[in-house]
Amino acid sequence: MKIERLTRALSLKRSIETGTEQQRQTVRTIIEEVRRKGDEALKEYTERFDGVLLESLQVSKQEMDQAYEQLDSSLIAIIREAAENIREYHERQKRESWMMMKEDGTILGQKITPLDAVGLYVPGGTAAYPSSVLMNVIPAQVAGVKRIVIVSPPDAQGSLPAGVLVAACELGIQEIYKIGGAQAIAALAYGTETIQPVDKIFGPGNIYVALAKREVFGQVAIDMIAGPSEIVVLADETAKANEIAADLLSQAEHDERASSILVTPSMKLALEVASEVEAQLETLPRKEIAAAAIEQYGAIYVTETMEEAIAAVNELAPEHLEMITNDPMSLVGQIRHAGAIFLGRFSSEPVGDYFAGTNHVLPTNGTARFSSGLSVDEFVKKSSLILYSEQALVANAAKIAALARLEGLEAHARAVEERLKKQGGETS
Amino acid sequence: MKIERLTRALSLKRSIETGTEQQRQTVRTIIEEVRRKGDEALKEYTERFDGVLLESLQVSKQEMDQAYEQLDSSLIAIIREAAENIREYHERQKRESWMMMKEDGTILGQKITPLDAVGLYVPGGTAAYPSSVLMNVIPAQVAGVKRIVIVSPPDAQGSLPAGVLVAACELGIQEIYKIGGAQAIAALAYGTETIQPVDKIFGPGNIYVALAKREVFGQVAIDMIAGPSEIVVLADETAKANEIAADLLSQAEHDERASSILVTPSMKLALEVASEVEAQLETLPRKEIAAAAIEQYGAIYVTETMEEAIAAVNELAPEHLEMITNDPMSLVGQIRHAGAIFLGRFSSEPVGDYFAGTNHVLPTNGTARFSSGLSVDEFVKKSSLILYSEQALVANAAKIAALARLEGLEAHARAVEERLKKQGGETS
Repeated sequence: MKIERLTRALSLKRSIETGTEQQRQTVRTIIEEVRRKGDEALKEYTERFDGVLLESLQVSKQEMDQAYEQLDSSLIAIIREAAENIREYHERQKRESWMMMKEDGTILGQKITPLDAVGLYVPGGTAAYPSSVLMNVIPAQVAGVKRIVIVSPPDAQGSLPAGVLVAACELGIQEIYKIGGAQAIAALAYGTETIQPVDKIFGPGNIYVALAKREVFGQVAIDMIAGPSEIVVLADETAKANEIAADLLSQAEHDERASSILVTPSMKLALEVASEVEAQLETLPRKEIAAAAIEQYGAIYVTETMEEAIAAVNELAPEHLEMITNDPMSLVGQIRHAGAIFLGRFSSEPVGDYFAGTNHVLPTNGTARFSSGLSVDEFVKKSSLILYSEQALVANAAKIAALARLEGLEAHARAVEERLKKQGGETS
Repeated sequence: MKIERLTRALSLKRSIETGTEQQRQTVRTIIEEVRRKGDEALKEYTERFDGVLLESLQVSKQEMDQAYEQLDSSLIAIIREAAENIREYHERQKRESWMMMKEDGTILGQKITPLDAVGLYVPGGTAAYPSSVLMNVIPAQVAGVKRIVIVSPPDAQGSLPAGVLVAACELGIQEIYKIGGAQAIAALAYGTETIQPVDKIFGPGNIYVALAKREVFGQVAIDMIAGPSEIVVLADETAKANEIAADLLSQAEHDERASSILVTPSMKLALEVASEVEAQLETLPRKEIAAAAIEQYGAIYVTETMEEAIAAVNELAPEHLEMITNDPMSLVGQIRHAGAIFLGRFSSEPVGDYFAGTNHVLPTNGTARFSSGLSVDEFVKKSSLILYSEQALVANAAKIAALARLEGLEAHARAVEERLKKQGGETS
């Protein structure tokens, strides 16, 4: 693993996949066909792309039962416990409607309303993660979303992974469709005979899914377009090299474009971690992927001081930050940009990926500078409430009219004055 | 004004302006030039598009003083009072970082961090609204954003409107640049010699500004792309037709594409409002604009019942909703989709546009189904915090590893187990 004395500004930013013109055209055609032909188009595309002709798009009760038979009962208990932890954390994010009342009778407030319906895209194949189901569905439920739909591409036998189905069923989700790709996004956005449209679409996917989400944006809302995953470990000489190396590799095994970075003022630690990474890499099942990621996007930056190391972390604005230092809580206030912050040596990233309760859907590619991980907030809307009293209007109408006229908006001024005109006779 | 018995599903959605290919190309060229030539490009474009060759891009102390001289002191006092109201409301939106501590020593939390730097685009010409300065800057300040930059295109004399400058100065904003269009967005996103880049760009603008915001999205965050403004008035027979008509016209004067709609179960009110609109229209300075908007996008829908009327409002998902009914608070819980809700006859929309304290930047074009108005939330990021205790890791490592292996991510399992291996010898 490369070790570099840090002498330059850092950035995680890599180019964003925008697809080729041909891919964009393919996606537009698929969306158009789904809008035109509905379920028929969904079945045709599923046959063409997933290699299976489905009789029914929706997962049946029977398929759900089969999924339970395939999964070890101890695993089901663990999924339940993870779900409880995730629910407990996200309950804390929930916000209530509020009001402020003034003595003149005016009431101002903010009404929190859950979205009516959301769709979750769960990728197929090896990237089909039951944990993604938990991380997307639970905040929606905590927010109070009534209709939650899951779509996921079937395998050649027309099945979805047992882990995904069990996770969904444990959360009480019943509306699951065996469709994937751009056609699934089109169905969620515009609806078909059997699938009612949703208001917002969540979840990662391949380039066709990402392009389709961009294409339907406006018709519905979408969550972020996720990039490859990243970890930055900030460590001092008290950290253990074998643990840091294992964490760097856990990120690297995701994807050849994943990024694993150590920032430390300790050259000794840097050298030990580099050598541990090489050693641990040897026995990993996903060795090729992890090695490629470490080679291309891995780095160890050695700084003069901890202050410099913290500045480097803020430049990188990582999705995941581990702080494995003597007293991480004393430094965390200085971290300005990170999706999730793991404090101390027992807070290995997988703890948060799966189980602790925080969300694992986090801003990638340096976007932690300006955006946040998935939370209950993404499943609600806020409406402001204004109940102006007669007393307040009488007291302030002239001011409001003056502001309107300053902006050249006479009808705005008159709308307020129209109340006074009539009111004058009635009240005074 | 058209009156229609409501018999069909309603939608406010109009096509979103995506510009022509030539406009998109122009915008890309401008951004490229600003990235390449910096301030020089900004001055060239300002000369070409705004007709003025600037010596300095930044508004000077002297220009600020001149702005104060141009504005009546009573207006300045009103701006201050509006700013106080807006600040008081938005203070209620502010959220604090929090933590939850478990008995096993685990701490989970959410850290709220303000954005480092934001830019606000203020349109030029007749659409230069001091109120927009207040509505965008105050939530940023409440959030704790340290650097707030305003950009706005100068007139042919190289000046910005006095109202805009005074509003900015009242809020303590000093970094104001006399640039507009796509070049201003490019400068905010990428920076030049004199302008440091920001993290997020707010504010409306013409098609070039909107396209430039789309283009730089990813490099920086952007707020919504605003469409034409809308009002829906929900009223019963207790409402006064002259007041409703004035409110419908206040929306219509904004823009020929603005939409003003009344939904009511009362045919009597419908007829009266239609006739009041015609009458009041006659004397409006912006009569042509308002008449065109009413003609194209105005409507009065008469329903059989109040329940139907509320359902129609939810279908429309308006930016602004006025509820002028006998007891609006008893109905507000049924409103699922609206950017801002004005309750009762004294809550005319301009009250909220200017003065009451709520934000006037709201979701347009039916997007209130899934999005919210501007708030303090848009100026902060949330980072999750995970401090797992040794006790928690020992108790849960096997579960976390089992979940990781269910997803085929062996290195994730090992990252957790790596702690136990060493820990076993030390602790037991």
